[in-house]
Amino acid sequence: MKNFKLTLQYDGSRYNGWQRQTKTKNTIQGKIEQVLSLMTGHAVEINGAGRTDSGVHAAAQIANVKINTPYSASEVMAYLNHYLPADIAVTACEEAPERFHARLNAHGKTYRYRLCDGGEKPDVFARRYVCPWEQHLDVQAMQEAAELLCGTHDFRAFSSVNRRFKKSTVRTVHRIDIQRLPHELALTFSGDGFLYHMVRILTGTLVEIGAGERSLDSIAAAFETGDRQLAGITMPPNGLILLSVDY
Amino acid sequence: MKNFKLTLQYDGSRYNGWQRQTKTKNTIQGKIEQVLSLMTGHAVEINGAGRTDSGVHAAAQIANVKINTPYSASEVMAYLNHYLPADIAVTACEEAPERFHARLNAHGKTYRYRLCDGGEKPDVFARRYVCPWEQHLDVQAMQEAAELLCGTHDFRAFSSVNRRFKKSTVRTVHRIDIQRLPHELALTFSGDGFLYHMVRILTGTLVEIGAGERSLDSIAAAFETGDRQLAGITMPPNGLILLSVDY
Repeated sequence: MKNFKLTLQYDGSRYNGWQRQTKTKNTIQGKIEQVLSLMTGHAVEINGAGRTDSGVHAAAQIANVKINTPYSASEVMAYLNHYLPADIAVTACEEAPERFHARLNAHGKTYRYRLCDGGEKPDVFARRYVCPWEQHLDVQAMQEAAELLCGTHDFRAFSSVNRRFKKSTVRTVHRIDIQRLPHELALTFSGDGFLYHMVRILTGTLVEIGAGERSLDSIAAAFETGDRQLAGITMPPNGLILLSVDY
Repeated sequence: MKNFKLTLQYDGSRYNGWQRQTKTKNTIQGKIEQVLSLMTGHAVEINGAGRTDSGVHAAAQIANVKINTPYSASEVMAYLNHYLPADIAVTACEEAPERFHARLNAHGKTYRYRLCDGGEKPDVFARRYVCPWEQHLDVQAMQEAAELLCGTHDFRAFSSVNRRFKKSTVRTVHRIDIQRLPHELALTFSGDGFLYHMVRILTGTLVEIGAGERSLDSIAAAFETGDRQLAGITMPPNGLILLSVDY
């Protein structure tokens, strides 16, 4: 049995997210498992580091898969790239130690949210990966708010997790960088882990603050109460990309 | 009457090229004219600097349009960007002198052809703009060939112009740069003008030389005879982009 570590790049536009589901078809995990099953002749299950939502992209998602195969890592990569569609690519494949698990061993992730504010039209070649925003956003106000969001907090208010969700909703956000690039505002989030919709809600909160529609004080109130209503909107998925996973 | 100079960016993937046609619909020129007609209330005709083929993209195509309108240049730009689809954008609009004509006044153009060679899978986010190529290409051999192609020559063999085409097929290619980037080979062509399919055939000739399937001597023979059969294949349109137009 070999344990392969895969680095994956995908355009999530036409997929129902990463995770294979029983009802919904057309997931990224499902596509990759399908090709590996074709290669090995039996059902295959892969573990992804992050379960990206429907419409969310990845520059370097990490997954591992245990299979019994005579193929080398580079042969597995070539096979996958040949049979996967053009919007999913394997950019690296290596044999990993038997105990390596892409999700359980991950100790950090970095996501980026790309916006085009002030009513400017997004670059046509990046239009599927950048979210247009009518108002001009005040980066300085967003940076002040970002400082309040960093650190270890209970992020329940900044997530769509079910109220009855029993597991801890405490997470540590290490860094939030906000960069004004030509025709684009890029928000980069690094942390030990992110709850369901958390990056999109953190972005929505920062966007509302940048638009002057929300006060800085609302952040402390959201942390204290855990009330989803006190945080910002959930931004559309197309602006979000999983940049990297740390081990 | 105002004469507006428009700088246009487009993803040509789903269009039948730049030029409005009577039979074929869905052209880039047609889309822009349609929106300007909506704005002015009467038929409008625009002049584009380069008639990009079906499937070819542009980073900065230039066009001019003469219209009778109370709108300022920035209002025309905002109107166009609002009504044009997400794959066509106006990145600049200014009032030009009455005699300015985007095609007749252009004295040079720069195109780029993007390839991903060696059977590597193209970056998924650039997959519509990069042409995959199975063989690994020898850049040094391509650079030697590029030197032979530069200069003033009769490029009839390197074009798809009709044999009965009476106008001059002499053009000057100022520069051909071949750059190996990460996961990509970029060929940049600057010249005073390019014939129908010329950049794609020059690229096809260089690719065949880089793959070791064509000799350097064939270039001189193609120039001498003007025989299309002696030049390389016409590369697919999706790898080609009009970068800029000089005035």
